[in-house]
Amino acid sequence: MKANKSGSEQKQKSESIGRRGFLALGSALAGSAMMGGKAAAADSYPPKDPDWSLMLGPGVVDRPYGQPSQFVKGVIRRNVPWLTATQESSVSFTPLQDQPGIITANGLFFERYHGGRATVDPAQHRLMIHGMLERPLLLTMDDIRRFPSVSRIHFIECPANGGMEWRAAQLNSLQFTHGMVSCAEWTGVKLSTLLDEVGLKKDAKWALVEGADAAHMDRSLPIEKCLDDVLVVYGQNGEALRPEQGFPLRLIVPGWQGNVNIKWLRRIQIGDQPWFTREETSKYTELMKDGTVRGFTWLIYAKSVITFPCPEKPLKGAGIYEIRGFAWSGKGKVTHVDVSTDGGVNWERAKLQDPVLPKALTRFTHEWRWDGKPTLLQSRCVDETGFVQPTISELRAVRGVNGIYNNNAIQTWQVKPDGSVYDVQLA
Amino acid sequence: MKANKSGSEQKQKSESIGRRGFLALGSALAGSAMMGGKAAAADSYPPKDPDWSLMLGPGVVDRPYGQPSQFVKGVIRRNVPWLTATQESSVSFTPLQDQPGIITANGLFFERYHGGRATVDPAQHRLMIHGMLERPLLLTMDDIRRFPSVSRIHFIECPANGGMEWRAAQLNSLQFTHGMVSCAEWTGVKLSTLLDEVGLKKDAKWALVEGADAAHMDRSLPIEKCLDDVLVVYGQNGEALRPEQGFPLRLIVPGWQGNVNIKWLRRIQIGDQPWFTREETSKYTELMKDGTVRGFTWLIYAKSVITFPCPEKPLKGAGIYEIRGFAWSGKGKVTHVDVSTDGGVNWERAKLQDPVLPKALTRFTHEWRWDGKPTLLQSRCVDETGFVQPTISELRAVRGVNGIYNNNAIQTWQVKPDGSVYDVQLA
Repeated sequence: MKANKSGSEQKQKSESIGRRGFLALGSALAGSAMMGGKAAAADSYPPKDPDWSLMLGPGVVDRPYGQPSQFVKGVIRRNVPWLTATQESSVSFTPLQDQPGIITANGLFFERYHGGRATVDPAQHRLMIHGMLERPLLLTMDDIRRFPSVSRIHFIECPANGGMEWRAAQLNSLQFTHGMVSCAEWTGVKLSTLLDEVGLKKDAKWALVEGADAAHMDRSLPIEKCLDDVLVVYGQNGEALRPEQGFPLRLIVPGWQGNVNIKWLRRIQIGDQPWFTREETSKYTELMKDGTVRGFTWLIYAKSVITFPCPEKPLKGAGIYEIRGFAWSGKGKVTHVDVSTDGGVNWERAKLQDPVLPKALTRFTHEWRWDGKPTLLQSRCVDETGFVQPTISELRAVRGVNGIYNNNAIQTWQVKPDGSVYDVQLA
Repeated sequence: MKANKSGSEQKQKSESIGRRGFLALGSALAGSAMMGGKAAAADSYPPKDPDWSLMLGPGVVDRPYGQPSQFVKGVIRRNVPWLTATQESSVSFTPLQDQPGIITANGLFFERYHGGRATVDPAQHRLMIHGMLERPLLLTMDDIRRFPSVSRIHFIECPANGGMEWRAAQLNSLQFTHGMVSCAEWTGVKLSTLLDEVGLKKDAKWALVEGADAAHMDRSLPIEKCLDDVLVVYGQNGEALRPEQGFPLRLIVPGWQGNVNIKWLRRIQIGDQPWFTREETSKYTELMKDGTVRGFTWLIYAKSVITFPCPEKPLKGAGIYEIRGFAWSGKGKVTHVDVSTDGGVNWERAKLQDPVLPKALTRFTHEWRWDGKPTLLQSRCVDETGFVQPTISELRAVRGVNGIYNNNAIQTWQVKPDGSVYDVQLA
């Protein structure tokens, strides 16, 4: 252990926002102060105990599976009723404004269904691997759990995350602009381990991956990605996959758009060309300015967003704040995040919080003294390949305005003098 | 992307357990095979869809906060009714045998109460910091959230974890031998940041930390630890702290025994000597062979356990298996884990799974060909300080047999020819 430091020595090592900044916070204990909701003489500690400090609470037997506090009921997934024709082929958004770290709580992980949430009996479920390979297989869940396992922390993002922003259909909400991204620790088998077991034939170039849901959601994946870092997972943040995430088995395609991370995975077919399924032709493609269509745009490029302050979490008067947010890139690790508090004129380097993992949400923080005047906040992610998150203008110049998918533009939050925060787009 | 590899090239890079080992798994697709629970001609894929693959599932509106699958209801916390006099001062054990990665699901995190689970209104809750300091403070939850924040993944272990093993009161269950350890991503404020704000006086040497529960659970902590890595946290795995874990505010004392990680934290008093509270005198001390008592034994030493196979997860016949488990150390990172499949005669180095983080659960795996004969499985953790996890005999030689706490001995699982697994102690 380090030697105890005197007060003056500690002052020298204090963070920049330390004693200068936060002295305005909290109530000094001179005179009376609030303790337990009622005024109490704080210099005669302890004051009268509040009720909740005197009641013996429930013991260990009433909640074999725990639940959040009754006081945080508002922290839930939300959907936008008009966004899709049906609720069975729709999306719910995670409350990113209330996510404290890089792990998304299993109960709050965003949902995207193409045929509703399938209910699959794991004892009956099978994974079939067939096509251009030496030894087609039909695997039970017990079989799959026998294979060598890995655990990885990765984000999943729907490419439609931010889609409403392309045309400025703004709901003034972080949850709705960026809530189709979540992050978890996944456990399962490398797809390369399974493909090694079945023995790919020489011309094997593509895999069709298919779900057991009513939509039989399917996508084509190049075999190089399958042999790289794709996982077939059954575990999520300390327990079995949640039904919303494809219980009992899903694909994790690290860094690639959500819809290829097939849920309720039941079939992998190996072939020598892509299948051009409905979900990679009529959907998940992008109409460009010149009338051509971009397809197979799997990769999630460098992206970031400020989660505090945001429309749901306004500021409370001038003073020092910690700006907080998440950054992520489908190409690997986040190298750094810059923050602008003047609409992109000046940029300062934010702190990254450990752990910084490839293709995972990465938390950043940045100390900021707000003078109470109106301003514009932005964050900009740079990943280990040197890719720099673009502005919405840069993105529109390349992609036009027909897009729904793959909006990784820098987000601008407008701060008004009363501390309220608005979703705006700079020209 | 890497170039596509032909089947023969892949074979060369296969893992040791690959094509040789797992060919026994799964059903080859020649002839008929099981798909969807009933026999189906697998060469005419797809076979008849099972019911669950044809039904449109619920949409995105029915579960704003999700729940585990109806098929995993047995994965729950469990308690031992006879272990404690009341259920309000007791413990529940996490189902470690079903934890796939290093993160423990919030709903399954082990519980330890001294006065039951407190129900605390965050709007009414206050943290008081007073004593030998320049500027005592009373902080609201909003105040605390304003301070610079950090996120860390750390385990918490009750020092009584494994306590029943000291006297061989064996329940033949991994959940009950090792289920008082869990691991989460915590978000909050460094205690050093708060102490820097209040300004410690020169003679400040100890902190009393106290909870708002009915037990007013309190412990003394040396100021060096408080200024090192202790956190005051409000976030847990993507959401607010769970009530079981001290909502809205708890202390995280990385690598130190669970009971000092005060839940429902309401008060920190700074002084120049320890308080010798009830929970550090009559409890959480160890009676040694010579009649003296060890106190203030905070540190969790290097420890590990095999989670597969285990009593709850037996083997299914001879063949190749992946042995899986967790290792942890309160002194820092796990450097390596050795596994013995012959009762400690020979040891082999296990693989560690990323991420390997200080004072966090670390997952290890080890491939093993079981010949179907009876044997003894063990794992042994070594941490970055060089500390080697001891045998139970080594531990008894030093500590005697009066102990309840701090049993970090190597665990032995006896495997019988039918694949069943038993908790045994070697002489």
